[in-house]
Amino acid sequence: MAAQTPRLGAAGELGPGSSAYGDRSPWEKSARTFRADSLTPASRSSRTPLQDLYGTITPSALHYEAHHAGVPALNPRDYGLLVHGLVDRPLVFTFEDLLRFPAVSRMHFIECAGNSGREQQGRPGETPQQSHGLLSCSEWTGVPLNVLLDEAGVKSSARWIVAEGADASRHTRSIPIDKALDDVLVAYGQNGEAVRPEQGYPVRLLVPGWEGNVNVKWLAQIRVVDRPAMSRSETAKYVDLMPDGTSWQFSFVMEAKSVITRPAGGQSLPGPGAYEITGLAWSGRGRVTRVEVSADGGRTWTDAVLNDPVLPKALTRFATPWVWDGREAVLQSRCTDETGYRQPTREELVAVRGLHEGGDGLDHYNGIKTWFVHANGEVRHA
Amino acid sequence: MAAQTPRLGAAGELGPGSSAYGDRSPWEKSARTFRADSLTPASRSSRTPLQDLYGTITPSALHYEAHHAGVPALNPRDYGLLVHGLVDRPLVFTFEDLLRFPAVSRMHFIECAGNSGREQQGRPGETPQQSHGLLSCSEWTGVPLNVLLDEAGVKSSARWIVAEGADASRHTRSIPIDKALDDVLVAYGQNGEAVRPEQGYPVRLLVPGWEGNVNVKWLAQIRVVDRPAMSRSETAKYVDLMPDGTSWQFSFVMEAKSVITRPAGGQSLPGPGAYEITGLAWSGRGRVTRVEVSADGGRTWTDAVLNDPVLPKALTRFATPWVWDGREAVLQSRCTDETGYRQPTREELVAVRGLHEGGDGLDHYNGIKTWFVHANGEVRHA
Repeated sequence: MAAQTPRLGAAGELGPGSSAYGDRSPWEKSARTFRADSLTPASRSSRTPLQDLYGTITPSALHYEAHHAGVPALNPRDYGLLVHGLVDRPLVFTFEDLLRFPAVSRMHFIECAGNSGREQQGRPGETPQQSHGLLSCSEWTGVPLNVLLDEAGVKSSARWIVAEGADASRHTRSIPIDKALDDVLVAYGQNGEAVRPEQGYPVRLLVPGWEGNVNVKWLAQIRVVDRPAMSRSETAKYVDLMPDGTSWQFSFVMEAKSVITRPAGGQSLPGPGAYEITGLAWSGRGRVTRVEVSADGGRTWTDAVLNDPVLPKALTRFATPWVWDGREAVLQSRCTDETGYRQPTREELVAVRGLHEGGDGLDHYNGIKTWFVHANGEVRHA
Repeated sequence: MAAQTPRLGAAGELGPGSSAYGDRSPWEKSARTFRADSLTPASRSSRTPLQDLYGTITPSALHYEAHHAGVPALNPRDYGLLVHGLVDRPLVFTFEDLLRFPAVSRMHFIECAGNSGREQQGRPGETPQQSHGLLSCSEWTGVPLNVLLDEAGVKSSARWIVAEGADASRHTRSIPIDKALDDVLVAYGQNGEAVRPEQGYPVRLLVPGWEGNVNVKWLAQIRVVDRPAMSRSETAKYVDLMPDGTSWQFSFVMEAKSVITRPAGGQSLPGPGAYEITGLAWSGRGRVTRVEVSADGGRTWTDAVLNDPVLPKALTRFATPWVWDGREAVLQSRCTDETGYRQPTREELVAVRGLHEGGDGLDHYNGIKTWFVHANGEVRHA
């Protein structure tokens, strides 16, 4: 920070013109990374580069995505959402119909149930993107589902809805009627423009705080029923096996969690001195009320500053200043939400749920994430 | 909304794969529009398609832009911000230096001083984009300027700062020291990723609530001084000529304003029935507290719903349901901010400031905008 003349590249030159739909700088290379073991392009998933993000919004171009059978190319002029089952009036809403209903816009995270599952197995990701990148946050705009259900008239025998997507797998999930009538959105807007194709264009379900796959994309129909569908994604997949051989089923809520994104694995500190420790915290149960940061492996904790506004079921940016003395340091964060629940250590979580060494790890892992700062400045997962 | 089988285009087919940096659907065509009378690509401006936006965030690809001498292509590795003048320690901050300081993220609108100026002259824009499109809103991330000024040590004789950009015109604006020490950001993040080139990559000044051109892009230096620079953009440009021949100078704040974006000019209602009237409201003085909507040219007004959270110096989405009876209607909105100030009618504003028939219209026009719904469903500016 000595006072010298700035160099400033092409300063003073007329640059290239601008375009009708702008792009990022050619010096920006941040990218989603794809799952290496995908057998086909239609079954792969990709992760958000959390370590590169600023603030709380995920750029739509970098929103994580997971799909079971490709990304269908749907024309909104052909769109229709069928609402039927235990209703007084089965209805189909066109895209134009949806735009005529009252809309709301809400900031909400979406997190894959399996996000950071390998941490539980002791196979931690090397960067925030690799460990926690099945997580993103957008401003979603749409019609409250309860408005559409009210149009159709829900019968008193209704207990669940079943949402089905228009992808080739007809991805199907059941949602209890209480949640369906609470804060669920039929969303067509994402960060100010149309929902992106990988996120469900033209219309998706947005189920605030619940595991990603329940937020059914390319939403084709909602059936009001008296019992869950027991679909593949609620029996063979997205159940949580416990050490005693029983399984958790319909474990929808993503519990309080956090991850430090800078300094973090894959990064390097140029030398001792002042840094900011920053990261993201969230809870599927509401607002984050507290994030504590430790630089000594959990012996002492400091309250981080939460960036305003702290919104329910949305990513919350936390930060705290830190002076690195050049010696080994162990960085951790832990999140508390408005219910009073505090993110557990990995050890506490494993004691209850086991290591789950087979497969990709257990769903709903939310243990504290650890980054090691080595004396040479490198930050690693171990 | 009759119950018929949805068609749903390519539903059930495996679609194209996804990419590392995603794009919007090929069916989405929303675009910025460029000023028709620009003499060179380096001097043109473009407008945000407000009528296509959802929620409050402007997608970065559609953020309005105005520049006086091109969009310089700056490499962040060469970046340096010089802070000098009436300071104890002149300093240069590299891009990496800036990342080590405490960052904050804030939603803020930016509006060109000349936005909607032609309305005053009675030459209204035909669509929200044409009338009010020099307006956008992003989540901006950066270092509070007061932190950097504190590093340099501001001398007690300081009264202003002068910010200079690295564009070919070396765009220069003066800002009173009180504002510089209040809520100004040295911003490098926009909607989660790096500031876009047209918005000042890699670093711009963000001066919440103040006219766009003060938010100096491609920020190269900040000079702390005891009097304003009296630069071209504060003497020959961006002064407001009054009917008595005097001018307003340094009229920084963008006052309370609103515009209905749907239904609006260029759109057409398919027939009588239920619609939502929605639009955007904002104030450079703080929060919007009330937006009223009229469908009868201002005879009666209804309070619109404001979408939460309502944030200071940020776009606020308002909406209210409306049943169109098929007859001519006159749609208007008016905004009140937390200071109690209410957006004036065009007539009230013209009575004070005149028509200003020459040139592009006066800066800082904030009169009520009118859209006419014709009996055939077409919505027009007259």
